[in-house]
Amino acid sequence: MKIGIVGLGLIGGSLGLALRPWGHEVIGVARRSATAARAIELGAVDRAGCDLALLAAADLVILCTPIGAIEPTVRQLVPHLQPATVLTDVGSVKQSIVRAIEPLWPNFVGAHPMAGTADSGIEAALPDLFVGRPFAITPTDRTPAAAIERVVALAQDLRSTIYRCTPEQHDRAVAWISHLPVAISAGLIAACAAEPDPETLALAQSLASSGFRDTSRVGGGNPELGVMMAQFNQPELLRSLRRYRDQLDQIIGAIDQQDWATLQACYAQTQRARSSFVD
Amino acid sequence: MKIGIVGLGLIGGSLGLALRPWGHEVIGVARRSATAARAIELGAVDRAGCDLALLAAADLVILCTPIGAIEPTVRQLVPHLQPATVLTDVGSVKQSIVRAIEPLWPNFVGAHPMAGTADSGIEAALPDLFVGRPFAITPTDRTPAAAIERVVALAQDLRSTIYRCTPEQHDRAVAWISHLPVAISAGLIAACAAEPDPETLALAQSLASSGFRDTSRVGGGNPELGVMMAQFNQPELLRSLRRYRDQLDQIIGAIDQQDWATLQACYAQTQRARSSFVD
Repeated sequence: MKIGIVGLGLIGGSLGLALRPWGHEVIGVARRSATAARAIELGAVDRAGCDLALLAAADLVILCTPIGAIEPTVRQLVPHLQPATVLTDVGSVKQSIVRAIEPLWPNFVGAHPMAGTADSGIEAALPDLFVGRPFAITPTDRTPAAAIERVVALAQDLRSTIYRCTPEQHDRAVAWISHLPVAISAGLIAACAAEPDPETLALAQSLASSGFRDTSRVGGGNPELGVMMAQFNQPELLRSLRRYRDQLDQIIGAIDQQDWATLQACYAQTQRARSSFVD
Repeated sequence: MKIGIVGLGLIGGSLGLALRPWGHEVIGVARRSATAARAIELGAVDRAGCDLALLAAADLVILCTPIGAIEPTVRQLVPHLQPATVLTDVGSVKQSIVRAIEPLWPNFVGAHPMAGTADSGIEAALPDLFVGRPFAITPTDRTPAAAIERVVALAQDLRSTIYRCTPEQHDRAVAWISHLPVAISAGLIAACAAEPDPETLALAQSLASSGFRDTSRVGGGNPELGVMMAQFNQPELLRSLRRYRDQLDQIIGAIDQQDWATLQACYAQTQRARSSFVD
């Protein structure tokens, strides 16, 4: 298969490294020609450049740009494509992307391979980034079956675990486990940093250890990424934030009332519940 | 120096292992005789048993029981002690402990060595558990200077970094960086687990990854410990929880209003601020 990859960062580069050994011909398109040249050097692509016309003969094109660039890229790309070409993406939100792209290209299947590292860019690309990781696909009633099959085969080549769901279910689920944690973790840092007594603040900074480190990690990450999650998944993130605040109010209420039996029951339940999300 | 250790778990055992090589004679007291025997076998103590009278000749006694047992233990212990004996503890809250113990034993210095592992019990004890870790001491206006000096010398033998502060500053600081994270992390798990749509819940559980894992870790920990933090540091934990909720409301407000500039400024600030707490 001829596979086009638009956006040669960590995800795009890793896709190329993972797919070429299966015999697929991988053609990359990057914004900067230096990135395209580096992707060739690293073996992530067979050919690469900055011109979307390079993808004219592709059977499958994977959009690996930042979320905000997906729709403008597709508008520039479609004049070059053949009708049978299947489009897919790797964006971490799905409703807004599917809603924007489906009218532009019927052969589109929304997807979200859930993988990453602390690093970014083509230099960080890894051939086994997607092995054993979740790969969500979000077809709609209008998505052609043949297009779905092609993206399922792609996920199989990556040795990912496929989850098929609606764009709505996807966005609601990732709001809970990915976008909500960023917001509440950022809130923790902001609240701690606003301690008005400078001696207490300095002491808190000195005493902060693994508990603070883990709970604050995602809230101290890339600000642009956090804002993008909120922008593109706003209704679902708001829903989860409001439900979270109600839950927090219950915990605050139990502590305020010194209702230790209720707090104990809550913490015993969260200890059990966590293991159904992560090991 | 003759050093008594009451409570031979991870912390008590590790203190014995760290202090004996300096030539201190370490006498342990445990609730169970099997624990005392095991502490001797492991080299954590010179002598050990279940009788507090063993500590009659001690120069320094370190209370390493759970927080709730500290006051009852001191009431049983004081009839056996000589007036010059210095008492200290390792409890993770300080105002309530200092308030309870100071009237019972004037030679008391509240302390909180900030160290731990995922394991507990004497088998998990490590001689270098405290090396390079913060060691908070919380003397009051009434604490004798000689007692403070003795506890400072203890922390130096442990090669810990000493922070001296009031019990109030200590409790406020640990509320921010240790007790608040537990409550907000538990709230995250509880809110996610309450998702009403079973398919979305199952998907969220399948897609949960490192972001959820880190943010939920301390909220999925020992329920008794979480409740004890709330019980013994209630006013400070409530204060930090309410300030945190105000902060969260600001984030929710920005997302609701689609005020991305404010959200971007907030996330950029939390990214910078986090590095003044942890590496």
